[in-house]
Amino acid sequence: MTNKKKQLKNPKDNLTNLGKDIVNEIGKGKDPTVTFQTRALSNVTFDKKARTLVLGNSMSARSFFNVAHAKKFLQTMEVAAVAKNLLKEGKHASLRDVFYQVKRTIPGTKVNIVDDQPESDAVIEDLELITGASREQININANKNGSVAGKVVIKDRGDVIDWSKLGSGGWSVPSNVEEIEFKKVDAKFVLYMEKAAVWERLHEDKFWEKHNCIIMASQGQTTRGVRRLLQRLHTENKLPIYVLADFDPWGFYIYSVIKFGSISLAHLAGETAIPGVKFLGITADDIEKYGLQKHLITFKEADKNRLKQIEKYDWFVDNKPWQRQFTMMKKMGAKAEIQALSARGISFISEKYLPEKIKNKDLID
Amino acid sequence: MTNKKKQLKNPKDNLTNLGKDIVNEIGKGKDPTVTFQTRALSNVTFDKKARTLVLGNSMSARSFFNVAHAKKFLQTMEVAAVAKNLLKEGKHASLRDVFYQVKRTIPGTKVNIVDDQPESDAVIEDLELITGASREQININANKNGSVAGKVVIKDRGDVIDWSKLGSGGWSVPSNVEEIEFKKVDAKFVLYMEKAAVWERLHEDKFWEKHNCIIMASQGQTTRGVRRLLQRLHTENKLPIYVLADFDPWGFYIYSVIKFGSISLAHLAGETAIPGVKFLGITADDIEKYGLQKHLITFKEADKNRLKQIEKYDWFVDNKPWQRQFTMMKKMGAKAEIQALSARGISFISEKYLPEKIKNKDLID
Repeated sequence: MTNKKKQLKNPKDNLTNLGKDIVNEIGKGKDPTVTFQTRALSNVTFDKKARTLVLGNSMSARSFFNVAHAKKFLQTMEVAAVAKNLLKEGKHASLRDVFYQVKRTIPGTKVNIVDDQPESDAVIEDLELITGASREQININANKNGSVAGKVVIKDRGDVIDWSKLGSGGWSVPSNVEEIEFKKVDAKFVLYMEKAAVWERLHEDKFWEKHNCIIMASQGQTTRGVRRLLQRLHTENKLPIYVLADFDPWGFYIYSVIKFGSISLAHLAGETAIPGVKFLGITADDIEKYGLQKHLITFKEADKNRLKQIEKYDWFVDNKPWQRQFTMMKKMGAKAEIQALSARGISFISEKYLPEKIKNKDLID
Repeated sequence: MTNKKKQLKNPKDNLTNLGKDIVNEIGKGKDPTVTFQTRALSNVTFDKKARTLVLGNSMSARSFFNVAHAKKFLQTMEVAAVAKNLLKEGKHASLRDVFYQVKRTIPGTKVNIVDDQPESDAVIEDLELITGASREQININANKNGSVAGKVVIKDRGDVIDWSKLGSGGWSVPSNVEEIEFKKVDAKFVLYMEKAAVWERLHEDKFWEKHNCIIMASQGQTTRGVRRLLQRLHTENKLPIYVLADFDPWGFYIYSVIKFGSISLAHLAGETAIPGVKFLGITADDIEKYGLQKHLITFKEADKNRLKQIEKYDWFVDNKPWQRQFTMMKKMGAKAEIQALSARGISFISEKYLPEKIKNKDLID
């Protein structure tokens, strides 16, 4: 059976067809086999036109009668069965739930179908390729984390939710945003930040109200729920997305993942990458312009090494504005946090820094 | 100046009085000094009557003319000034913001007022003692994290928010819940869980609707915002609180902190501990009753050591039901996660496990 990526739009049909194909192959006395694009760094390239990471054409096969493949083949079938069942019941499971649902001993042996969660996680990513559907579309979710506020009204599970009327907390972003319906979007852009505390600062200062925008945050690495929500706001509602991150290799990478996609999920770049995203975080130029020199934090070895990796990524290597930032950062040998702006006053970020940067279109693409 | 704990209810007045006392002492030619209860494990005891951790009577002094105290004294004054300013402006800052606001070089020297955030964090905790107000009451917040859903209507920053009408995401719990007003509370109890993924499971199964309750989660260690919200629901609305945690020393400690308070915040036990909380998580008995033996995870050295610490805590040492759990866990030499219940079916937790445990009052106090 060869994977025909996204030939069918309905993930449930795709799973059914996967099962039918396997049954057919067995009926014909063939070795049941699943074939799909190889998920490995060696098969990930940067598509300069689409400006996202993509998987190349190297293919992997997984056959039942190949001793090296048999266990993986079985895992794939088991996880596919769990996903099919979730879709049938209309329920969602976490990655951890799926692990426990497939974790059992093969009768008559002492072999477990899976021993650790990374095994079932990897198979779930394979299934994304095999079915042409994202994990969320086959009702498997990662952890939720994140808040949003702004001039938007959505409909979700029958509730009408106004993101501008949710007090100090905002709406808690779920792990799966596929079924959310946008009823009314009055905002002009989305500001995403890597820190929940910065979100609370801007929310208290009514930044989204004054600047007619949406503010969104998770904490640290951006959750998939948040990435998909950003992407849907960008593609369906044509909103520019600005990423407010630290001046450090990790902040740059948070931006990079939202914009170009991540290496491990290159096969899903179409579902999650947002090539139109721009960086509105702290830059080397901001350090001087906003007097943050005293708040630079000297690089540790890990920062140095991470910067060296990032500047060589295909999607950064020919990008002059970014290479300029990397060079300046290397010269400084130091990083700086968004919250260093608080040294200039608690609302300096919302009253001066952000309005100025937005007005001057001081963004990195 | 001696701290008179909670003599004054208004934190702003407390900060003003702190300043006035210091000015008075200077005016009289005295050595300006701040005195407050010592925050150290040696001064933390378990109050068997109140069933919370409390600080003992050992006192610490901090004098300006004592070389060993001078810097700490200065830090205390600086942070107090930042807090006073926040209260005056009606704004909130994160711990990180406060760090940057006090971080600067003392003129004419090469000495920074603070070098690292732990320094300002420690002073903020001292200020809680000095002013008798919690950090949140002096407008300093930690990170937000957590979601809530259920039959409750609140008012917050002028918005009326119905926790039962927020789609799949729920309300995002802010870092500071001091000013939330409860308008209508129809729920009969609160179920708090340590995992966001379990919250999404119960939310999708409409658990709170079927069982007339509130479901709340953060992720891992419970944030202070969530703890205070639980406490306010318990004390102001007389709702029982059940904690759904893993069967492991870390899950037990999550429960312990919510119930008895934490060692580092013993001075705030009154503000955050909830002695009425009960444990509804996985127990040693559940392992057999619900057939989870296959899903036990063998102890690592760290688990063993943590269990040894926990069983000796003052608040557990005389508690027979808990000592029984500890002994059984030690015998098993293994732990189990809430999500192991998914092996019995994706909604086993919401349709069988929890209803049964609640009906049978199968709780540990």
